[in-house]
Amino acid sequence: MSIRTPLCDLFGIEHPVLLAPMAGVSGGALAAVVSRAGGLGLIGGGYGDADWLEREFDAAGDARIGVGFITWSLARQSHLLDLVLDRAPAALMLSFGDFKPFLPKIRDGQAKFIVQVQTLDQAREAVDAGVDAIVAQGTEAGGHGGTRATLPFVPAVVDIAKEIPVIAAGGIADGRGLAAALALGASGVLCGTAFFSSNESLANDNAKQAAVSGSGHDTERSSIFDIARGLDWPTGWNLRAMRNAFTRRWSADMDGLMQNLSEEQARFEAASAAGDTDVAAVIVGEAADLIRAIEPAQDTLHGMISQAEDRLWRIGRLADPIEED
Amino acid sequence: MSIRTPLCDLFGIEHPVLLAPMAGVSGGALAAVVSRAGGLGLIGGGYGDADWLEREFDAAGDARIGVGFITWSLARQSHLLDLVLDRAPAALMLSFGDFKPFLPKIRDGQAKFIVQVQTLDQAREAVDAGVDAIVAQGTEAGGHGGTRATLPFVPAVVDIAKEIPVIAAGGIADGRGLAAALALGASGVLCGTAFFSSNESLANDNAKQAAVSGSGHDTERSSIFDIARGLDWPTGWNLRAMRNAFTRRWSADMDGLMQNLSEEQARFEAASAAGDTDVAAVIVGEAADLIRAIEPAQDTLHGMISQAEDRLWRIGRLADPIEED
Repeated sequence: MSIRTPLCDLFGIEHPVLLAPMAGVSGGALAAVVSRAGGLGLIGGGYGDADWLEREFDAAGDARIGVGFITWSLARQSHLLDLVLDRAPAALMLSFGDFKPFLPKIRDGQAKFIVQVQTLDQAREAVDAGVDAIVAQGTEAGGHGGTRATLPFVPAVVDIAKEIPVIAAGGIADGRGLAAALALGASGVLCGTAFFSSNESLANDNAKQAAVSGSGHDTERSSIFDIARGLDWPTGWNLRAMRNAFTRRWSADMDGLMQNLSEEQARFEAASAAGDTDVAAVIVGEAADLIRAIEPAQDTLHGMISQAEDRLWRIGRLADPIEED
Repeated sequence: MSIRTPLCDLFGIEHPVLLAPMAGVSGGALAAVVSRAGGLGLIGGGYGDADWLEREFDAAGDARIGVGFITWSLARQSHLLDLVLDRAPAALMLSFGDFKPFLPKIRDGQAKFIVQVQTLDQAREAVDAGVDAIVAQGTEAGGHGGTRATLPFVPAVVDIAKEIPVIAAGGIADGRGLAAALALGASGVLCGTAFFSSNESLANDNAKQAAVSGSGHDTERSSIFDIARGLDWPTGWNLRAMRNAFTRRWSADMDGLMQNLSEEQARFEAASAAGDTDVAAVIVGEAADLIRAIEPAQDTLHGMISQAEDRLWRIGRLADPIEED
């Protein structure tokens, strides 16, 4: 069982599948199991917390993993970059913001540098900076993202990236999505929702169950949860998560949410701690339709590879010459 | 050169590519050239105009073509269904609304019946009705559409449709998109933007040029142009088109547009007649990044097939066993 692309050589991995660095969800255990199963696990450094990072790198043991950060947040505590580079990650991924101030330090280390983009201008900037790989992320992704959809966005980024490997993200949770990404010219995929409900994920058990039971139709992009978490996200990105009582209450009344902010932030925090998914955010994408069980991440990854191989073999035959003469 | 899928057998065509029935753009000449090149051209019946339909069916000559309608609008002048069924189209496609009242008449005819869906519930309804094929349309499509993105939506529809062929639509304008759609489990694709700027398209020349020069980033979904055209679209769908001075003027002031409606509708109508794309709607989708020339539709179609064959062959090899033992 194997699908080899240039991305496999770049990262020294068996399967061209990366675990998305979901903040607070992609911990060391999940990253380690994805890497040991032949992919590349990225710890979700998110907004940056030194204790959490130390703990999760420890939890990954001797597995060869990487880490991802939210760029604009890392800029506020850039010492965390030293902390993770000391751990010699296989890859460092930055998303959402200006990565250029971090370039000199990253180039001093051994980690492959991945930049995630949501626009073609961002892709051009990443190419000009000579990054090792570009994640082209579609709006159907869970968590923060932009407006462009994966299927038409990926080939447009591939045309810009030329020799730099492009990793497709957003909406990919099974072997069909992986095969489609390769068809689009991507060299691999980055998956969050596919692993959100893994046994090894740090997501709350109720959130895992909600994701497995839910549909892509139950998700939407908004800024409500960012406001509820007191996060001052820059414009250009918002958060895809599942609709719930909290979003229905405030989606048409953002002013009301702002006026009741401290109370609602406390309610949100308590609900998150208690795993109350009527209020807390279940941060998955449209691929929720394609995940159906809480299972070991290794099973998810190997199922994806096996299904992708089957799809590649079948569609590869569609183009075989019917007769040779 | 050939990619054969069950869709080819269903429609009796050589290539699994359908021309989207773009209202007022997919006329008889364009539909005919797509069909003669081995795909299936669908005339864009749109909101329904008897004279236009007669003229465009005439323009298609003896080419084997189909036709598509906006369902809720057809319901207001259902006699048009008789008009087109008398023309013995190869296929009839309905989108946006309740198709069930038309079922008995359609089943009396010989046309294959295609229903376009934007939600999984609509897909289930189409399956229950026993339609011949389902178009699963993603939000990146130009023109009217819903919220779900093509890449994760198509496999979810395929899982529901089972033996009924699924046609992917939205964001597909080259061979990479076609190959990706097949990887997702679709049996073919329906393309609008790819053919919008064809020589044979009825789009205004300025609009064709704007589409070719534009990017997917220049498009957005809104209801502004529907209001400007005096169309009372039901909720659940809106229109993706290119942003221009008109949308920038009114996007944050829909109330203002309503208050100046007759004046703005007149201005819009005049601009549409004059091909003034600062005001008139250029109705293309995110795949605008992938179209780069005003060219014969036959070249577009054959280029798409040729590129898809190349992609299928390449990615098919990725799954080949490296060694047999």
